[in-house]
Amino acid sequence: MADKWIAGVDLGGTTTKIAFITVLGKIVHKWEIPTDNSDEGQNITSNIAKAIDEKLTEIGETKQKLMGIGMGAPGPVDYETGIILNVVNLGWKDNFPLKDSLEEATSLPAAVENDANCAALGEMWSGAGNGAKDLVCVTLGTGVGGGVIANGNIIQGVNGAAGEIGHITVIPSSGAPCNCGKTGCLETVASATGIVRLAVEEIKNSHSSSKLGELFTLNGRLTAKDIFDAARDNDRLAQKVLAEVSFHLGLALANIGNTLNPEKIVLGGGVSKAGNLLLESVKENFAKFAFPAVRNSTEIDLATLGNDAGVLGAAWLIKNKLNQ
Amino acid sequence: MADKWIAGVDLGGTTTKIAFITVLGKIVHKWEIPTDNSDEGQNITSNIAKAIDEKLTEIGETKQKLMGIGMGAPGPVDYETGIILNVVNLGWKDNFPLKDSLEEATSLPAAVENDANCAALGEMWSGAGNGAKDLVCVTLGTGVGGGVIANGNIIQGVNGAAGEIGHITVIPSSGAPCNCGKTGCLETVASATGIVRLAVEEIKNSHSSSKLGELFTLNGRLTAKDIFDAARDNDRLAQKVLAEVSFHLGLALANIGNTLNPEKIVLGGGVSKAGNLLLESVKENFAKFAFPAVRNSTEIDLATLGNDAGVLGAAWLIKNKLNQ
Repeated sequence: MADKWIAGVDLGGTTTKIAFITVLGKIVHKWEIPTDNSDEGQNITSNIAKAIDEKLTEIGETKQKLMGIGMGAPGPVDYETGIILNVVNLGWKDNFPLKDSLEEATSLPAAVENDANCAALGEMWSGAGNGAKDLVCVTLGTGVGGGVIANGNIIQGVNGAAGEIGHITVIPSSGAPCNCGKTGCLETVASATGIVRLAVEEIKNSHSSSKLGELFTLNGRLTAKDIFDAARDNDRLAQKVLAEVSFHLGLALANIGNTLNPEKIVLGGGVSKAGNLLLESVKENFAKFAFPAVRNSTEIDLATLGNDAGVLGAAWLIKNKLNQ
Repeated sequence: MADKWIAGVDLGGTTTKIAFITVLGKIVHKWEIPTDNSDEGQNITSNIAKAIDEKLTEIGETKQKLMGIGMGAPGPVDYETGIILNVVNLGWKDNFPLKDSLEEATSLPAAVENDANCAALGEMWSGAGNGAKDLVCVTLGTGVGGGVIANGNIIQGVNGAAGEIGHITVIPSSGAPCNCGKTGCLETVASATGIVRLAVEEIKNSHSSSKLGELFTLNGRLTAKDIFDAARDNDRLAQKVLAEVSFHLGLALANIGNTLNPEKIVLGGGVSKAGNLLLESVKENFAKFAFPAVRNSTEIDLATLGNDAGVLGAAWLIKNKLNQ
């Protein structure tokens, strides 16, 4: 089976990423198709099956080359049954039998997992996790997501809600409202959206001028990248925002560390592209809030797979299931 | 094997609890011996072996009745090797090969685990966990300890420091110093010691009189039980302390819930004897800080095994190892 491939799929609301991946975790072919979420999402799995068949024909391979198809999907998934409980942007009704639908469309063994969990599994398998069996991945994007791996397996939680790291409460009193209905969640200060909110608030409350404030006045908006760029440029206001973000993120990660003492905590998503500027500052706060034995053993690192983490983790599901 | 017993041992600095336990988790015999920690602890395992032999003779059974011996020990344990890394009150040098020593002394298969983890396993097996495979136990005693179980197994952490729930930082700025060297740990506000400290501070800062303040003036000291009794008696100051304890404990448990979404979080230890007075107040704060899908699925409950949790969890190690 060593020369076989796995199809890894990362399903998004507008685009579906597909890759053929070896059992050693190497991407051989990678492409994207638009996600057709019309008609209650009834074309999603058949479009994927079609795209895979076309690609196989194009490269002169047959279906026999594939040992299965793994998919990361944007919503809570019951791993055993492969049912996706509810989704926002895909048209499917609640409790859609995604695994069965994929198996029927592709005639391949399928496995389905939440997309944030797939990203975590991908980093474990061939990214920053480097084979670590105890790993926590935190995705800092428009929101903040997470995946918790213990003994090499994703922790699902009794209601599929394990890994909701973005909803760890870091500001217990008078925090900003979160999309989840709570206030003061990590997501309100460490997502791209949250970082921009903090900066705009700072600018509005500040009486001195700053490059970041000027940029905001000029463009009428800011991005998380603007803020990190300004901090790198020694803009005091941007540095203050960065310090606040790192304080809350470092605190949340330290408390995860105090609970799980994982080998690695991996930071991914668009915000993590701030790189060492963010990482060093988060590490300082982590060290402050982590139990000594955790501080000395749990490492924090940047994700290395970028957008490929999802398809790789999805493929790992099949590798793990078929015990290759 | 169904009629065989397991010897469960809960090793403490002054007393060692021993029990014979069925493979269904029922305690058949239970007794205690003093822990002899003289001479670098060289008598500890042989005394246990002797006590077991004597008890077997006393009840007219032979060693054949026992399928193994499991032990909970007060320190970090490497489960695979059965080495206890370091202990404070037992005389052993660092990295003592406890499992080997137990096997040699008793001629039985042995397994060793940290005592807080054993308590968690005991509650999972035959206590409040009621068979839940995803469970977090928090022991509120002189300090605050914890055990995290996922998929039916203890999470050890890369450095054996998983489950250090007492050292979750709940007061990030200007918190009280903790024995671990940090400040603002959960243990500084939710252990018996921490609760008393909060009450004494309140009394000293309060300008109005209170029953609790009078008791403190009378005795020159307070216990956690005094504070819960006074709160039950509608003493405002005691209720304020209880509200503060529950706030921090509820916050920490909610954040554990947001990360792991366990089936149950079980509260044990002396402080948990405050019962529903504490539980209801912790649950209210948990509900406030938990992600909705976690709030609706993760239950918080009081431990039911009391001092038996340790020997039961220790016995479970053997049951699990021999796959009974």
